[in-house]
Amino acid sequence: MIIIPEQEVVRLVGRKDAFDAVENVFASMASREACNFPVIREALGHADALYGFKSGFDRKSLALGLKSGGYWPGNAANGLTNHQSTVFLFDADTGRVKAIVGGNYLTAMRTAAASAVSIAYLARKDARVLGIIGAGHQSAFQLRAAAEQRDFEKIVGWNRNPAHLDRLAAAAGEMGLAFEAVDLETLGALSDVIITITSSFAPILKATQLRPGTHLACMGTDTKGKQEVDTALVARAHVFTDELAQAVSIGECQHAVAAGELVEEDITELGAVINGTAEGRRSEDDITLFDGTGVGLQDLAVASRVLEKAQDAKTAIEVAF
Amino acid sequence: MIIIPEQEVVRLVGRKDAFDAVENVFASMASREACNFPVIREALGHADALYGFKSGFDRKSLALGLKSGGYWPGNAANGLTNHQSTVFLFDADTGRVKAIVGGNYLTAMRTAAASAVSIAYLARKDARVLGIIGAGHQSAFQLRAAAEQRDFEKIVGWNRNPAHLDRLAAAAGEMGLAFEAVDLETLGALSDVIITITSSFAPILKATQLRPGTHLACMGTDTKGKQEVDTALVARAHVFTDELAQAVSIGECQHAVAAGELVEEDITELGAVINGTAEGRRSEDDITLFDGTGVGLQDLAVASRVLEKAQDAKTAIEVAF
Repeated sequence: MIIIPEQEVVRLVGRKDAFDAVENVFASMASREACNFPVIREALGHADALYGFKSGFDRKSLALGLKSGGYWPGNAANGLTNHQSTVFLFDADTGRVKAIVGGNYLTAMRTAAASAVSIAYLARKDARVLGIIGAGHQSAFQLRAAAEQRDFEKIVGWNRNPAHLDRLAAAAGEMGLAFEAVDLETLGALSDVIITITSSFAPILKATQLRPGTHLACMGTDTKGKQEVDTALVARAHVFTDELAQAVSIGECQHAVAAGELVEEDITELGAVINGTAEGRRSEDDITLFDGTGVGLQDLAVASRVLEKAQDAKTAIEVAF
Repeated sequence: MIIIPEQEVVRLVGRKDAFDAVENVFASMASREACNFPVIREALGHADALYGFKSGFDRKSLALGLKSGGYWPGNAANGLTNHQSTVFLFDADTGRVKAIVGGNYLTAMRTAAASAVSIAYLARKDARVLGIIGAGHQSAFQLRAAAEQRDFEKIVGWNRNPAHLDRLAAAAGEMGLAFEAVDLETLGALSDVIITITSSFAPILKATQLRPGTHLACMGTDTKGKQEVDTALVARAHVFTDELAQAVSIGECQHAVAAGELVEEDITELGAVINGTAEGRRSEDDITLFDGTGVGLQDLAVASRVLEKAQDAKTAIEVAF
């Protein structure tokens, strides 16, 4: 059994690793070679914690396992991350545990990779302005991964509390890009690509604020009730997702579907675009929307890549088990 | 993070540890302090394997985690156990991984402990003959744990293939007890306590073969379609279980409930008997039946005990994670 602690994952997993792993597993999901199992998510009634598992199997790569994850709101006060994730990989040929991989940084990287893959496949090639809505911990990861997908010249950002936009300004600076804090009207008017990465329970961005040709990646909505954009925007867009079942139940699509403004049949899995079995962007004026809900197979794919790299670098801790 | 490999679990976990852990967690389940989460069980479409997780949380003991388990039918040919289980324990206060515990021997011990607890609480005090139906790997575990619960004088056993009864004869010998291979009629007529531990998909033992006062522990049925005793027997018995929801869906009760011969309201959780909030055996002539379906909390409870013992004995492997 191989153990790869969090700090080693941080050292090993790069944006390209995460991008390639997520791109491949989205493709496997769409060709039905990979399957996510039902998600377990429970309120513990202890420490205000939410806890659960996302699991799955990719018959193509043989990635098998689960990510245990949870949210412990009291952790920060004790110097720990509130979100705690660990990935467990199993040998698909024998069922034995193969590796335990720290999952906190990995989760941030795989979530950023998902919107990056959506931009690579769906955004206009001439996109120059990237808009980011939300400025929490995850936002900088989304920005960095997205910025590599097109020749962006500028980043614009909006956050409910503008003070936190410093985080985006710093990440943009790292990438050698100008940053400007703007209002939502301006963000919609300027951006060729927009990423929403908030914990909002009410629409922030509206259809009227967007211009034709924009690609939007909605990455914050992963629970019943959460919402980042109005249903008119979803109804107007050409909609893609990582996993259809999650999009309509816990993703951004849940509201437009419930309102009868979007039908499941009009939602395309991004993996099908990657595989060339479904059409992506149809025209320069198409508004494309990627509903990124987050699936366990993304975690397993990136963790498998980390494991390979740790074995190549001979930095893995091996324990007889 | 603490690692406790399989061979160390074998060294550390005794029958009393397993009994106490299972007794306590059944009590916590019945008082609603402990809760099992939904079970994941999937056919992988690879290596003919079945794979899944049982998970839960006990607010009383703070045991939190899951057992990953699976069945890889090709393992034996490669010198590995077909059933592969591993328990993962988490810190309920922070969500961080606490321990990885080998789960194969532990699963055998906790399953045996469940029928032993049912005997301790439900069998007649003057029980002298123990009957075992089934002679697979697990049967010897059930026998040893059961034999300690009453002053048994004799074990009788039945198996579809009588050659395998050697296993039970040997286990009985270890416990200093006489063993006799018998037919089902004789087994029913002689036994004060009967344990069924088979993989049968059709009833083996019938109501007509049992005499009044018997306690029966049905331990083999854990899947839709499996069945060890006829529905008339279940209908006639005073029925107990580890978890009601599992009993009626995947346990021995599934068939009697489907046939309308048993209603959910007539099934008692064994933990309620342990807690003194429900009646156990009502008379010396009562036929009591324990439907042991197997829950994740049993695994977590025994694994937590193993962890304590490993820490006390300073034999745990600790890895910074």
